[in-house]
Amino acid sequence: MKNERAHSLLEQLGGLDTNLFNKDFLLTWKQSGADLQAVMLAAEALEELWRANIAPRVFAGGLAVSNFRDKSTRTRFSFASASSLLGLSAQDLDESKSQVSHGETVRETANMISFLTEVIGIRDDLFIHEGHEYMAEVSTSVDEGYREGVLPQRPAVINLQCDQDHPTQSLADLMHLQKTFGSLEALRGKKIAMTWGYSPSYGKPLSVAQGIINLMTRFGMEVVLAHPEGYDVIPELEQIAGNHAKESGGSFAKVHSMEEAFTGADIVYPKSWAPYQIMERRTSLLRAGKSKELEDLEKECLANNAKYKNWECTEKLMKLTKGGEALYMHPLPADITDVNCTAGEVAASVFERYRLRTYNEAEHKLYVIAAMIMLTRFEHPAAVLKNVLDTAAPHRMG
Amino acid sequence: MKNERAHSLLEQLGGLDTNLFNKDFLLTWKQSGADLQAVMLAAEALEELWRANIAPRVFAGGLAVSNFRDKSTRTRFSFASASSLLGLSAQDLDESKSQVSHGETVRETANMISFLTEVIGIRDDLFIHEGHEYMAEVSTSVDEGYREGVLPQRPAVINLQCDQDHPTQSLADLMHLQKTFGSLEALRGKKIAMTWGYSPSYGKPLSVAQGIINLMTRFGMEVVLAHPEGYDVIPELEQIAGNHAKESGGSFAKVHSMEEAFTGADIVYPKSWAPYQIMERRTSLLRAGKSKELEDLEKECLANNAKYKNWECTEKLMKLTKGGEALYMHPLPADITDVNCTAGEVAASVFERYRLRTYNEAEHKLYVIAAMIMLTRFEHPAAVLKNVLDTAAPHRMG
Amino acid sequence: MKNERAHSLLEQLGGLDTNLFNKDFLLTWKQSGADLQAVMLAAEALEELWRANIAPRVFAGGLAVSNFRDKSTRTRFSFASASSLLGLSAQDLDESKSQVSHGETVRETANMISFLTEVIGIRDDLFIHEGHEYMAEVSTSVDEGYREGVLPQRPAVINLQCDQDHPTQSLADLMHLQKTFGSLEALRGKKIAMTWGYSPSYGKPLSVAQGIINLMTRFGMEVVLAHPEGYDVIPELEQIAGNHAKESGGSFAKVHSMEEAFTGADIVYPKSWAPYQIMERRTSLLRAGKSKELEDLEKECLANNAKYKNWECTEKLMKLTKGGEALYMHPLPADITDVNCTAGEVAASVFERYRLRTYNEAEHKLYVIAAMIMLTRFEHPAAVLKNVLDTAAPHRMG
Repeated sequence: MKNERAHSLLEQLGGLDTNLFNKDFLLTWKQSGADLQAVMLAAEALEELWRANIAPRVFAGGLAVSNFRDKSTRTRFSFASASSLLGLSAQDLDESKSQVSHGETVRETANMISFLTEVIGIRDDLFIHEGHEYMAEVSTSVDEGYREGVLPQRPAVINLQCDQDHPTQSLADLMHLQKTFGSLEALRGKKIAMTWGYSPSYGKPLSVAQGIINLMTRFGMEVVLAHPEGYDVIPELEQIAGNHAKESGGSFAKVHSMEEAFTGADIVYPKSWAPYQIMERRTSLLRAGKSKELEDLEKECLANNAKYKNWECTEKLMKLTKGGEALYMHPLPADITDVNCTAGEVAASVFERYRLRTYNEAEHKLYVIAAMIMLTRFEHPAAVLKNVLDTAAPHRMG
Repeated sequence: MKNERAHSLLEQLGGLDTNLFNKDFLLTWKQSGADLQAVMLAAEALEELWRANIAPRVFAGGLAVSNFRDKSTRTRFSFASASSLLGLSAQDLDESKSQVSHGETVRETANMISFLTEVIGIRDDLFIHEGHEYMAEVSTSVDEGYREGVLPQRPAVINLQCDQDHPTQSLADLMHLQKTFGSLEALRGKKIAMTWGYSPSYGKPLSVAQGIINLMTRFGMEVVLAHPEGYDVIPELEQIAGNHAKESGGSFAKVHSMEEAFTGADIVYPKSWAPYQIMERRTSLLRAGKSKELEDLEKECLANNAKYKNWECTEKLMKLTKGGEALYMHPLPADITDVNCTAGEVAASVFERYRLRTYNEAEHKLYVIAAMIMLTRFEHPAAVLKNVLDTAAPHRMG
Repeated sequence: MKNERAHSLLEQLGGLDTNLFNKDFLLTWKQSGADLQAVMLAAEALEELWRANIAPRVFAGGLAVSNFRDKSTRTRFSFASASSLLGLSAQDLDESKSQVSHGETVRETANMISFLTEVIGIRDDLFIHEGHEYMAEVSTSVDEGYREGVLPQRPAVINLQCDQDHPTQSLADLMHLQKTFGSLEALRGKKIAMTWGYSPSYGKPLSVAQGIINLMTRFGMEVVLAHPEGYDVIPELEQIAGNHAKESGGSFAKVHSMEEAFTGADIVYPKSWAPYQIMERRTSLLRAGKSKELEDLEKECLANNAKYKNWECTEKLMKLTKGGEALYMHPLPADITDVNCTAGEVAASVFERYRLRTYNEAEHKLYVIAAMIMLTRFEHPAAVLKNVLDTAAPHRMG
């Protein structure tokens, strides 16, 4: 049988009992194991289809709206790619060019952009305690619009990075691990070191670290979170990660030494972030318009960062990992010492050795987004994709 | 028969003698009654198709170009949605990123963006006596290009709000009235109060008020325009509205009291605008680059506005309307007292009661735009849509 | 037979031995004669298809990415139009909104935007010795990504204007000449005067002049490059043009008199540019962040330009051309005396006489871009387009 792998993936997908139809995808820890597995299966199936020159254009019209409240390359192009893959028209909501700057309410905007919309992808990671809240408000607003007959369909809200989670990244990372180690089952007992890394910049979101510790603990992994004293992530989210570990038979530990975290690790994930306490102070000052204090905070924070320049993923540190050959991961772009900064998260030689693999890691994101769209917008996504597979219309003619 | 309503609408559409093919849609008062009726029928038919999961992709390629010279959410997304609905690729002309900022002439730009273009949607409402002129110049330019064989097709120019009219808004409003009161015939004799409303901002366009008084007077309605002394709309347009009322057997009156306008009204439409005399002074000062005088004008105008804070659509005023239950309308976003401003056009409780209905009102706009595209770009739009209906290709698979 | 012309063009295209599949299109002088001919044939065939209401949607999904590092109307819309024509989703890479501004490397960005991408169109003409280098680096990066299995397809890099060449312009110009004079063969022995023209602006790229002298010398034309002393183009590129002339049996000469260049010319192409030595100084100063020196350079350059206000394409000069009726060409927008400047490249009456023909010239560009996509992305483009022609699916229904 042609495309056997895709058939098998869709077979498995069809057997899952998921709860995503007409819902959103905001935080992995609010989704069931079946939901996560469904995203992984659908994403891999879509990847198979594209590579087999089959066009999964399950839509013929309709919008995929994005709202990027922070810079983005990968996620922006992943979202646009997922839209094109499925046949939706990508439309960016640039709030500076819209009536949002005229005082329009969130619930109103959410409905105004949704009359023909199947999905709303949002990045809102600059302000702690606000990004997720904003997405939840958009969600409530389209719920009301759909319930009250204002919207002919309920667009799914997809989190493209908030202050808490970055699910399209962490699930793409999980696909990368699945491919690297052979299966999700093979991840059981593997040690992953999610560590802070030095960066010359300031104010980076916490969502990747928080997303990784909360997702990987669900698959029986030994998850270690490492950072200098004072660089904490949101405490509640650490607690959830701990619970996940208990439930899955894995473990979750926190240490303040990169060496300790790296020792014997199967996977290392060094990535900078700002302490959540700093992010909280920053948000208050920004809201209060205190620019002098903000400058002072930035200086204080950069000075503090500078004490931890040794939090760099060097060859020496890599030698401490399992067989000296742990898998290095990064959501990109990385701060690479002597490449795009003078001191950064990772040594140039380490990064170069894993560079192409970080590109592979990044590729999955577009399919994860497309999978989330399939699962939230179709009641029977496996059947729809089975139909696509049988029809086998090419995306490139000839 | 399935989709009976759509069949009936297309039947009626096919029987109309319209004059829109290869033309533009700029001002409702330049179009025949049949043209207006055709837009309404086509819009409703397209709405039926989408809700019946039928994809009216009458184009397979070609551009839908938008040029927003002022901020927009609703209209921007309506235009993008209409493009996606019909199968066109939306492309925004951002003049700041184009050679327009290098001194390119209007007639040249109009042709340069049109080689594959079916429609050009323009918002140009900031300068009085200029917005419509600009659209007319684009229209003349593509006429020449098409006539001389430069353009393989003649893109339709569609007014997405100018200094005079806002036809996609007023026709969406008319659809809303038609749905609310049951039919266009039912509007005969109904009283609509198009009133000024207090807003803390300055320089809002006049096009909605002018559009409403000129469109609703054509359907036998009792149209009352109300505003404080000195807040006049363009006099010539009042005159046209008066003529319409005479012809249709309706009426058109102007008053300077919100109470008077609301009394016994079936529909109220309170919405802020700047007096046309102020807009004329503003345009001259802007053209002359007199920034000091502009600041003074803004202060003068805001101070003047502040005298009319009582022009607010309150519960007390609503009680004066027919049975205390007039339909409240607004093009959105509204200035809502204690929601997005301290004093505005409408009280929070009034707005909240009608909020979802204003969303319904807004939905029609995308279908009005799509209808205008159908009527200007196809010689036999009813036949084309009949074909779509018979084929019944879904816009969402499965 | 219907569409006989298209059939004949595709027949010829099928017989050519080209080398563009899975490659880029960066500089015309790096491509074989067969490659250039193939672009011309495919472009004309696509133009025929569109005008015959046939949709060449050879893609069903996939991105066409553009990166405009300088302003653009024509090329921006040509690229978007070509994308829509072929069924790709246009996606603009706005570097200011991307992680590029966070220090991401070129090779990384190139891969990150390419997981579903068929073509990357780049305009990078502001810095001499850099635009082509950047495109070459993107090309090397996607080569690596495709070779190493990161990218499922290799996107073609298409030069939408660099510091050296402007191939989509020069090939559109060649199509214009072919249509005007009847055939490519008819161009043999025709004299074309590529001359500098006065402009009140500063820092215009050299790529059009360099592109024209290098392309037209390959078709046996008598190419004369004329400019004031000191307004040289890149010397290496003059040399290549000379070699082309020798090989094709044409000629290439440089003069410092507009009169001399115009005398007996069949075609005149007056267009401003900045001397390459100035561009080199400008690039160094920009890189060094020397804003004071940059201002001085601009003043010096504009003062120098002002000495050559007589380099204007006037009626008097046009009288010197072959029969006083040479074809006037321009990539647009032109600096037209008394239209968009007080003194410019061309007199208003001359421009007006040829205005519509410059629009015809411009139309070809979108089909040239589409042709480049066909040739770089399909191994058998003639067969694919033959299939399109036989299927004859309309781009506008009804």
